[in-house]
Amino acid sequence: MRSFQYHNPTRIIYGEGEYKNIGKEVAGFGSKVLLVTGKSSLKRSGYFDQVVSSLREAGCRVSVLEGVEPNPRLGLCLKGAELCRRERIEVIAAVGGGSVLDTAKTIAVAALDTGDVWDFFLCKRKITGALPLVTMVTMAATGSEFNTNAVINNEQTGQKYAIHSEHIFPKVSILDPLLSLSLPADQTAYGAVDILSHIIEGYQTAPGKAPLSDRIAEAAMKETMLWARRALDAPQSKEARGNLLWCSSVALGGWTWNGWGPTTFHAHTIEHEISAATNCAHGAGLAVVLPAVMRFHSRNNAAKLAQLAQRVFGVTRYWNDTAEALALRGVNGFKRWLASIGCPVTLGELGVEETQIPEYARKIALNPEAGELDAAMAEEILRFAVG
Amino acid sequence: MRSFQYHNPTRIIYGEGEYKNIGKEVAGFGSKVLLVTGKSSLKRSGYFDQVVSSLREAGCRVSVLEGVEPNPRLGLCLKGAELCRRERIEVIAAVGGGSVLDTAKTIAVAALDTGDVWDFFLCKRKITGALPLVTMVTMAATGSEFNTNAVINNEQTGQKYAIHSEHIFPKVSILDPLLSLSLPADQTAYGAVDILSHIIEGYQTAPGKAPLSDRIAEAAMKETMLWARRALDAPQSKEARGNLLWCSSVALGGWTWNGWGPTTFHAHTIEHEISAATNCAHGAGLAVVLPAVMRFHSRNNAAKLAQLAQRVFGVTRYWNDTAEALALRGVNGFKRWLASIGCPVTLGELGVEETQIPEYARKIALNPEAGELDAAMAEEILRFAVG
Repeated sequence: MRSFQYHNPTRIIYGEGEYKNIGKEVAGFGSKVLLVTGKSSLKRSGYFDQVVSSLREAGCRVSVLEGVEPNPRLGLCLKGAELCRRERIEVIAAVGGGSVLDTAKTIAVAALDTGDVWDFFLCKRKITGALPLVTMVTMAATGSEFNTNAVINNEQTGQKYAIHSEHIFPKVSILDPLLSLSLPADQTAYGAVDILSHIIEGYQTAPGKAPLSDRIAEAAMKETMLWARRALDAPQSKEARGNLLWCSSVALGGWTWNGWGPTTFHAHTIEHEISAATNCAHGAGLAVVLPAVMRFHSRNNAAKLAQLAQRVFGVTRYWNDTAEALALRGVNGFKRWLASIGCPVTLGELGVEETQIPEYARKIALNPEAGELDAAMAEEILRFAVG
Repeated sequence: MRSFQYHNPTRIIYGEGEYKNIGKEVAGFGSKVLLVTGKSSLKRSGYFDQVVSSLREAGCRVSVLEGVEPNPRLGLCLKGAELCRRERIEVIAAVGGGSVLDTAKTIAVAALDTGDVWDFFLCKRKITGALPLVTMVTMAATGSEFNTNAVINNEQTGQKYAIHSEHIFPKVSILDPLLSLSLPADQTAYGAVDILSHIIEGYQTAPGKAPLSDRIAEAAMKETMLWARRALDAPQSKEARGNLLWCSSVALGGWTWNGWGPTTFHAHTIEHEISAATNCAHGAGLAVVLPAVMRFHSRNNAAKLAQLAQRVFGVTRYWNDTAEALALRGVNGFKRWLASIGCPVTLGELGVEETQIPEYARKIALNPEAGELDAAMAEEILRFAVG
C-alpha cells in the first residue's frame, strides 16, 4: 500500500423520514440559515414546505436561494454569497442534487472571502474557511454530501472546474430515500453512472496495490449496478433508492482509494468540457467518455482492468486469455450495460461531431487539473467514443 | 437498510516511516504531553527513544506513563489521570497495542472528571469530555485507533467492561507498518482473530439487510485472513503488516455495519469474563468463544451465516444443502483455520474446566452490556466450546 491520509468528519444520518429532522441538525450550527435549492421538483413533491417548516420550528430564520440548475453556474453562487453577507447568514442548508450541494459549498467559501472566488477553481489561492454546511441530497450521484469537492460552471469563461477543501466537508448530511422516489429514470441512470465513474476512474489508474481498497471499491460497484437496475425496474422501491444513496456517498467519500497512490480522473476532466459545451447531463456525458477512457487504460493497466472485468462485470477467464483481452471484454460488457439502462454511449448521441474532437481536445488540455492529459491523449480517447 | 448514523472524525495517517511525524501531529493539540506506552518491547526496538525525540523536537514537554499490560487495569488509568492533573497535561499520545490505547482513552476521560471513572463503565454516568488523543498503534487488533471504545479491567471488582463515547475518538492515528514487524507469531494470530471477531459478531446478528455493508465486511474479513497468513509466513513483510493494520482499523471503524440495525457482541462479552479470570490474551479467548457463538447463531440466523460461509470461507453449496448445513460447514472450516494459525479452539486450552461453565455463565450475565445474553444462553454457548 502507498502512504495515505484518510479523514472524513461528515456525520451521515440515514433513514426514511429523516428529512423532518433537518431543522434540528441545522440549528446546531446557527439560527440564520440560507436554504439553497434547485428548480421546481422539490416544491412539487411538497418536501420544500416541510423543510422550511422544520427549519422554522427549530428557531431558524430562513433566507432562500432557489433555481440552481444542472451544471451549476458561478453567477448564482456569487448572488448567494452576497445574500449571506447581507443577511449575516450563519449556516447553509442545501437540499437537492449534486448541483445544489456544489453551489452551496461554493457559496459557503465565497461568503467568507473578499477576493475573486474563481481563483480557488484556478488553483491560484487556497481556501481558508467556509460557513458550516448541512446537506440533504435528493439524488444518488455526486457524493458531494460526503466529500470535499464542488464543481461549478463559469458561464463567463465557459470553464467547468472544481475545488477541493476540507473546509467544505458538510457538517451533517441527511440521506432520506423518500426524497429520491420521484427521480425520473434518465436521472436515476445518469446518477448511477456518476457513482460508478467515481470508483472506476481511481481503480483503473491506481499505481499502488491496496487490496482492501480494491475490494471495498468492488463492493460499491457491484451494489450500485444491482440497485440501479432495481430502481429503474421499481422506481418507488425505498430499498433501491436508499441503497443507491449510500453507494453514492461511499463511492466518493474516501473509503475506496486508501493506499492506491495518486490516480487520475480523465473521464471527468473530459466530460466537464463536453457538458460545459453541450449542457448534457454529467452522467450522460460520463456514459460516453468513461468506457473510452477504460479502453485507453486497458493497454497500460491491463491487469487491473482484467481484475475489474472478472470481479465486478462477471467476465470469465479462458485459459488463453491475456489480461488485455479480459479488460476489453469487461469494457465492452460495461458499455452494453450502460446502453441497457438507457444511457448514451457515443459522442453522436450527445450531438458532438467527430470533426469537433480536435477542438474539444485542445480545450480539455487547458483544465488546471488535466495533468498528463494533453490534447493528443484527449483526442485519442475521444475517438474511442465515436462508434 | 435500517436507519443509521455514521460519524468518524479520526484522521488516519498511514505509511512506512510515518512514526517520525508523531511530534508534529501531537504538537497541534498542545505542548504538555502525556506519553502512554506498554512494557519493554517498544524500548527494545528503539522506537520509544525516537518517539520521545520527535515529541521534544516539536517543542513538547513529555511526561511518560509506562507499563500498560495486556488486559489493562483501572489502577494505572487513575494514576495517569492524576499525573495529567498534576502536570497540566494538554494532550495524550498513546503508542502501543490496544491495551495502551484503551488506557490512554480512559485517562483522557478521567483527567477531566472529578467523580469515580468506573461509573462510566457501569453506564451510571455519561462521558462529557476528554483530553485530545493522538495514537500510534503497534499491533493490528482492537481498532481502538479508529473508534469510540475502550475496554478496561477493574482489578478491585474483577470486572472487564467497556466505555463508548465520541469524545474518545483519537484526533489523529498513525499506522506505521514498521512498528509491528517484530510482533510475535502468537500475538499476530490473536490480533487477526480480534479483527475478524469485530466484523463477524455484527455480521451474524444483524437484523437489517444492508448489502453494501455486508460486502465491505466481507472484503475486510477476506483480506484479514489473507494477510494474517502472510504475516505469519513472512513476519518481516511490511505489506502484510500494513494491510493487517488497515484491516484492523476498518473492521471496527464504523464502515462495515451501516444499516444493519442493532447487533450483539456476545463473544466479546463472554470472552471478557474469561480473560478477566484467566488473564489469557483477548484474541486467544475469542478464538475459543467466537466459533461457539457462531454455532449458536447458525440456528436462528442460518441464512446470514450461510452467506458468510460461501462468500468468505469458500464453502461450496450442494443442491440439497440447507442454510444451516452451509452455516455449520462454514463455522467448522473457520475453526480449523483458527487452529491452523496457532490459536486455541477449546476452553480446556485456556485452562477452563467444563465444571466451571455455570459459574462463568452466571458472571457473564451480570455484564451491563449483556442484554439478552442470560446465564442459560451463555452456558449453552460455552458448552459448544468444550470439544
